[in-house]
Formats: sequence, structure tokens, C-alpha cells
Amino acid sequence: MDSGSGEGPQREGLRKPDPKLPKLYGVGDPTAAFFSDSSCLSSRGRVIKWFWDSAEEGYRTYHMDEYEEDRNPGGIINLGTSENKLCFDLLSRRLTQDDMLRVEPSLLQYPDWRGHLFLREEVAKFLSFYCKSPEPLKPENVVVLNGCASLFSSLATVLCETGEALLIPTPYYGAITQHVYLYGSVRLAYVYLDSEVTELDTRPFQLTVEKLEMALHGINSEGVKVKGLILINPQNPLGDVYSPEELWEFLGFAMRHKLHVIVDEVYMLSVFEESLEYRSVLSLERLPDPQRTHVMWATSKDFGMSGLRFGTLYTENQHVATAVASLCRYHGLSGLVQHQMAQLLQDHDWINDVYLPENHARLKAAHTYVSEELRAIGLPFVSRGAGFFIWVDLRKYLRKSTFEEEALLWRKFLDNKVLLSSGKAFECKEPGWFRIVFSDKEHRLRLGMQRFRQVLEAQSQEAEDTSPQQTQEPSGQPR
Amino acid sequence: MDSGSGEGPQREGLRKPDPKLPKLYGVGDPTAAFFSDSSCLSSRGRVIKWFWDSAEEGYRTYHMDEYEEDRNPGGIINLGTSENKLCFDLLSRRLTQDDMLRVEPSLLQYPDWRGHLFLREEVAKFLSFYCKSPEPLKPENVVVLNGCASLFSSLATVLCETGEALLIPTPYYGAITQHVYLYGSVRLAYVYLDSEVTELDTRPFQLTVEKLEMALHGINSEGVKVKGLILINPQNPLGDVYSPEELWEFLGFAMRHKLHVIVDEVYMLSVFEESLEYRSVLSLERLPDPQRTHVMWATSKDFGMSGLRFGTLYTENQHVATAVASLCRYHGLSGLVQHQMAQLLQDHDWINDVYLPENHARLKAAHTYVSEELRAIGLPFVSRGAGFFIWVDLRKYLRKSTFEEEALLWRKFLDNKVLLSSGKAFECKEPGWFRIVFSDKEHRLRLGMQRFRQVLEAQSQEAEDTSPQQTQEPSGQPR
Repeated sequence: MDSGSGEGPQREGLRKPDPKLPKLYGVGDPTAAFFSDSSCLSSRGRVIKWFWDSAEEGYRTYHMDEYEEDRNPGGIINLGTSENKLCFDLLSRRLTQDDMLRVEPSLLQYPDWRGHLFLREEVAKFLSFYCKSPEPLKPENVVVLNGCASLFSSLATVLCETGEALLIPTPYYGAITQHVYLYGSVRLAYVYLDSEVTELDTRPFQLTVEKLEMALHGINSEGVKVKGLILINPQNPLGDVYSPEELWEFLGFAMRHKLHVIVDEVYMLSVFEESLEYRSVLSLERLPDPQRTHVMWATSKDFGMSGLRFGTLYTENQHVATAVASLCRYHGLSGLVQHQMAQLLQDHDWINDVYLPENHARLKAAHTYVSEELRAIGLPFVSRGAGFFIWVDLRKYLRKSTFEEEALLWRKFLDNKVLLSSGKAFECKEPGWFRIVFSDKEHRLRLGMQRFRQVLEAQSQEAEDTSPQQTQEPSGQPR
Repeated sequence: MDSGSGEGPQREGLRKPDPKLPKLYGVGDPTAAFFSDSSCLSSRGRVIKWFWDSAEEGYRTYHMDEYEEDRNPGGIINLGTSENKLCFDLLSRRLTQDDMLRVEPSLLQYPDWRGHLFLREEVAKFLSFYCKSPEPLKPENVVVLNGCASLFSSLATVLCETGEALLIPTPYYGAITQHVYLYGSVRLAYVYLDSEVTELDTRPFQLTVEKLEMALHGINSEGVKVKGLILINPQNPLGDVYSPEELWEFLGFAMRHKLHVIVDEVYMLSVFEESLEYRSVLSLERLPDPQRTHVMWATSKDFGMSGLRFGTLYTENQHVATAVASLCRYHGLSGLVQHQMAQLLQDHDWINDVYLPENHARLKAAHTYVSEELRAIGLPFVSRGAGFFIWVDLRKYLRKSTFEEEALLWRKFLDNKVLLSSGKAFECKEPGWFRIVFSDKEHRLRLGMQRFRQVLEAQSQEAEDTSPQQTQEPSGQPR
């Protein structure tokens, strides 16, 4: 769940600002801004509770005043949470078929904590086919658990010591901060990317090995031990994908430094623009360091079922698979759901002939609608055709280039009954970027975009009405 | 899952043996006996993996050679894992009824991490009725997650700092060791109970406030901070219950020392002997320290569905409820299962008229069969009529009173194709106790008990054949 105000405690890093050089890396410290005096909790319990409370203003304001076409047409439209709401009809029909509700003794007894073998077999077949792996993937390399949040939590814990860090390019899906920290006390080390397009950087927010090397060197020099690299592909919030060459280079970088690579491919089947040529890391002929490469996938995004809680790890490292499985006592999913997921994943006819074509067509149509709206307003944005979101440049609507101003704009959207996620929630280093989720029904999208536009118009009007304090120069050329 | 060899790394505590006084407390240290050199894992990842590997010999030997009446009649009978296998027919009929398979958009979207409101409302009603609470319990005090293992993990983390301890009387359900340690790095501090019946101790392994006070004092004097007390009621492995007066005294002890109390009532509806007069802690007129009293319940035992992964916390402390809810991102259960559980828990007609009477009758019959077998062999045992197990005194079958001898006997049972849990797995301080789970079908019970008897007969024969090295004096009078 990644809506919210984007105000996290990890904002104050270990930064020693150098006035001449822009700092292109940083280490998050989720406890730095922390305080609170709630009764009976341990200090870490208070931090954990803080993460819940901090989402109050966004996500829970929304839940208290949720838009409903008939019953609450003045309620809040949620363009902040990355869920695919376009295919409930297809899913509901499939999940209520006769094969779904089976209750056998073995499903009601303690499972193999890695997941029932029948399910791991189906997952291996499914990933072999949809990731286009050169060799069939193996059930013993699969661990099944209740979603990728749990997978980040367990992987961080078994790969890192307390206080160690995982490298991640920003902007990134901000909830990972909590996932690796709340139980594991693992921090993220940022590789700050920017929107400027140059000779070397042909895309906004482009990741390169040089930037990884520089960030790793800088973070090491601050005494923070980096144990791995997180790659999100397709990327969230950019909606971009890494080419096989880029993937290979990043994996090579990790191997040189003995870093684990956690590859989050949770939007793998949500590439709706065929020209994008997405390639799963599991499709590579070989991996540079298979013992340190761990791939995650889930049904939350690609099958629009965030509430079903099904995720899976693929790793050739049996030590890692076993350690994660040992933590699966705390991340197990119902035997009945394991049966349902096996039925769903093995139904390639339905997936290929019914679900995927329709899902991609609906995603594409919704994406086209929102991106045309943005072009009509004259807003630069990033989005190439994967995922559920468009990364929009609203920097010219900030009176000053600060995250306080970004938060004020975010609040204006919420006051005008549209929930968005602001760049701070993704640790974007440039204030003024927002993520708009477009994977929703037309009537909600239309109303949401109308309200979005109203806020920007009011913001422009306000800027005209007051004497200009500081003009904002957009530095990038994002498309 | 609590079968296995009982060889955990927490065996070496901080004991400073005093030759004169028996030590009646101790602190577990799950890392003390730890080593291993597996590649790419953090040191805590290696500990976590160790816990998985250490179950290999018991639970996984069983899974490779599971008894099946037709296909593998020579396979291992599992009398070690505490599961109720007596009522699959009733459960299967209920769980496949028409009301169970409902797929609504809200169930497929991100849930309220505390659990959907409709489910928390049903849980509150269910607990109010079956715990006989004086006032209706409230949905806002309920947190739903995927089982009590997760609840121990999350509660330990939000109540204790790393290295702090929770007090627990032994013998106890040994898996709690991992639940509080693997993620939370919280240790257990033991109150060692013994089997002797005296003027003051009218029952074997009786807990008293004096023993709690003494253990707390001793543990504090060793520099270990104790943050709470765990009470299992009905008790596992003793199959005993605390009287309301005892409960009240233990809660008073905790209040005096500002200790949290975690009350595990997971066998609440598995009291099959009515004369036992079980009382839930939630039935008390008032709680001495409601902000520090946290009650857990689950469907795993009482509804024979360990594989369904449904557990719930009841606490009036909203800080604790919120902090646990924040960790529920990692312990969430499927929306579809949440719907099913709401349907099940609200069906009081089925629970009262069909399920509970039949379940209790079957538990009682199985218990009667096994206890009569034990009497026929002449074995002392503890079991008063709650839970799925009988705690059997096999001390006279050990050649020496050591845990090595206990482990040898355990292995003989396994070699003779019957899996049991030995006292070491429950941190029993007296070598030679075993837990027999009786909640299984008659044909498996009969065969299991037959094999059990064979091992004891062979053990007696062996003792007669060799010159006696040391005679074993049973010190207790357990019934």
C-alpha cells in the first residue's frame, strides 16, 4: 500500500552537504525523526506504530470518505494506491468457478512452510513460461508466502545484519523502507537519480553502473555496510523497464562487489506496451552470480489481487530459500488459497486468451486517457507503458523547490478530494514530482483528473495573484 | 508445528549451577550453541536457517515416510504434532457450503491491515459469547492475522527491546522460543516447574506466584530485563487449566511488576472434560492491568485448521493493537479467507449444535483410549481433559537421567515408526517426559500405541539384559 503523505521518518539521512558537489547518494535512517511517548511499547514498537500513524492523513482520510458513485459522489478519488481495479469482473468469474473451493485434510493441516509442493510446482511452471527462462525453473527454488512485503522483510533479515543497508535507486516504491526496517532493522542506501536528460543519460532518472559505483563508494566511505542491491523491473514509479544489457551490467556490478541482488518483478505481466520489450531477469541465458540473485513476483499487481496476499521467491541459493522458509511460519498463507492459486496459475488458456489481452487493452486505454489529459494541461511526465502509474512533473506548480511546498500541493489535492502520492514518498531528490495511478474505471479517472486539473488551475491563479517570490526552473526534459 | 527432535539452540542458558540449591529459573539463549558456515547469509540468517534444519530429523523424516493406511502402512505415525484430525468431515462439509466462496472487489483489494471490519466485528461477537465476557468485546480491540506464531512474533517485537525476555513456566509449547526470537530477538526466561506433588504443590508441574516471584528475582539478578509473562491456558503440554483464582493471582503478580501478560487461549474450545471448569481470562469481571493484558486465540486448534492460518489478538491497549497492526503487513491473510472465517465464526448454530458436541465427544473417546493404554502399561501421566495431548512420564525407561538418554529413546520411537515430542522440546527440566498427541483417527492411534509399547518393551528387555548402570528413581507422582 503506497499511498499517503509521504512523510516518513527516514528523511534525515547521514548527509554532510558539500556546497559544490551535489550529493548523489544517501542512507536512510528511519529512527532519526522519531520521538513519541506511547504507553507500554518498546522503543522499536513505537517506531513501528509511528509508521502506521504517519499514513493517517492520506490513506485513512481516504477510507473515511471514499468515493462511491451513488452513495458518496463527493468522496475522495484514490489515484494514489497502486492497484489494478480494471479486471474485477474477469477475476471474479474465474475465482468463483467450481475448481476453486476444494477443502481437503492436507489443506487444513500444517503446510510445508515453503508452500505446498503442488503449488511450488505450478509456480515453477508458470514462471518458466511467463519469464521465458532458457531452462525449466525448479520447485525446490521456489518459496511461497503472503506477498512481497513479507518477502522484502524476510530477505532483508536473512541477508543483512542489523543496521546494514541495501542499495536502491531513487525514486523507488517507498514502502520498501518499512518492509526492510520494521522487523529487520535494515536500511536503504539511495542512489539518487535525476530527471535531466544529457548525452550520457538518454532517459530521465536513468540508472547507470557509474552511478551505482559512485553511490556504493560514497556510502562505504560513511562506514555503512552495503549488502545488496534492489532492482524494481518494471520500475515503480517510473513505469520504465531495464534493457537486458542494462540488467546484465547491474548484475555484473553486484557480482564485482559481492552484493546480493533482489529483483522485484511484481509488474512483470503488466507491460501493456509491446514495443517496450520487457525481459525478466530469469530469461537471461545465465546469471553472473546466481547464488546472490533473488527474484520476487506476486499476484497483487499482475492479477489485480492485492488483498489475496500471494507472493513468491525464486532463488537458486538453497541457504537463502531455507532461511526465508524458516521465517514463513510468520508469512504463511491458507491452504485453501494455495489451492486456488495453483488452479489459477496453471490455467494458461484463461490467462493467455482471456485475462492478459483484456487486462492489457484496459490498461492501455486508461493510460492513453490520462496521458492525453496530462498533455492537454501541458505537463511533462515519465511513463513508457508498464505498470499502473504515470510519474508527473509538477515542479512548476511549486512556489519554492522544497518538500514542504510539495506537501502543501499534495494536501490541496486531498482537500479537493483526490488522493495522490508525492515524490517524497519515493525518496525522489527533486521536489515536485507526483505519481498518478491510472488503472481504475473510467468514471473515477475522469472525475479524479477533473479535480486534479482544478487544483493546478487554482495554483496557477494563486501564483498570478501574488507577487512571484521565486520562479521555478524545470531542469529536466521528462517526457 | 511442535514435533521434532527437541534439539534447539536455546539449551545452554546463563546457568551458574549451585550444587546445593536446585536452580528454578533460567534464560534461554538461542544463539549459544550456534555455528554453521552457510554461504551468503547474515549471522542471524544462519540462526534462522538453523531452526529449520534442526527440525529435519523429526518432522521431515516423518514427511518422507508418512503412514497411509493403504499406500504406506509401514510409514511413520505422527503422535507428535498437535493437530486435531478428528473432524475433517464436519469441517469439509461446512467450508464447502455456498456461503463460503464469495469474491468481491473489496476482498481483492488492500485490506485494513488489522483485518476487515466485518471480520473484526464477528471475532468480537464470537469471543464475547465463547469467552463469556461480562461486557461485549469491541471490534477496535481486535487484530486479525495469519496465526498465533505471527502474534507471538509481533507482540514480542513491539513490547520488548532486543535481548529482553518474557517469563514462561516450563514445560511449555516449545515453538514459542522461535516465535519471539527469530524476528524479535526476544528471549524466554524460564520458571522451571517439577512433577513432585507436595503439601503446597497439589498438582504436578503446578505454577504458583511464589515460583514466579523467585524466578523473576533470580533472572533480574542476572541482569536480564523481563518485560512480560506468557500464560498458556489450557496449558500445552500439560492439558491442564488455571482456575480463576490462579489466573487472578498471576495477573496480580504481573501488575505488581509492570509486566505484560500474553495469554494464549488457543485450546479454549478444546476442553472436552466439563468438570474442568475452564475460564477464559476475558470472562473475569475485571482485569488487574487491562493495558498490559493481551489475549490470543486462533482457529488452528479449536477448529482443527492449522493450515488455514487464522489468529486474533484481543487487547484494550490501542498502542499495542496499532503497533501489531502495523506489522500485519507481513502477517496478512487473504480477503477470501477473511470472508470464510466471518461466515464460520458467526454460525453459532453449527458450532453449538454440530461441531463442538461432536468434536468434544471424539476428543474424549480418543483420550480415553490412549489413557487406558497408558494405564495398562503402568505409565504415570498428566492430562486432565483439555487439549490434544497427554504428558507421559517415561523416566523409568531412561538408563540415566539425562537429555541424551531422552533423545536416544525419542530416536528409538522414530526408528519404530512413531513420532513423538520429547520433554526437552518443552524445556522440561526433568529428562524423560514425552508428549503424546491423541487427537487422531482410531486406526492410527492403535498402530501408534502398539509401536510405542513395543519400544518400551524392548527398552525394558535391554535393561534386564545389561547390567544396571544406574537405577532411575521417579521423584514425582504425576497422574
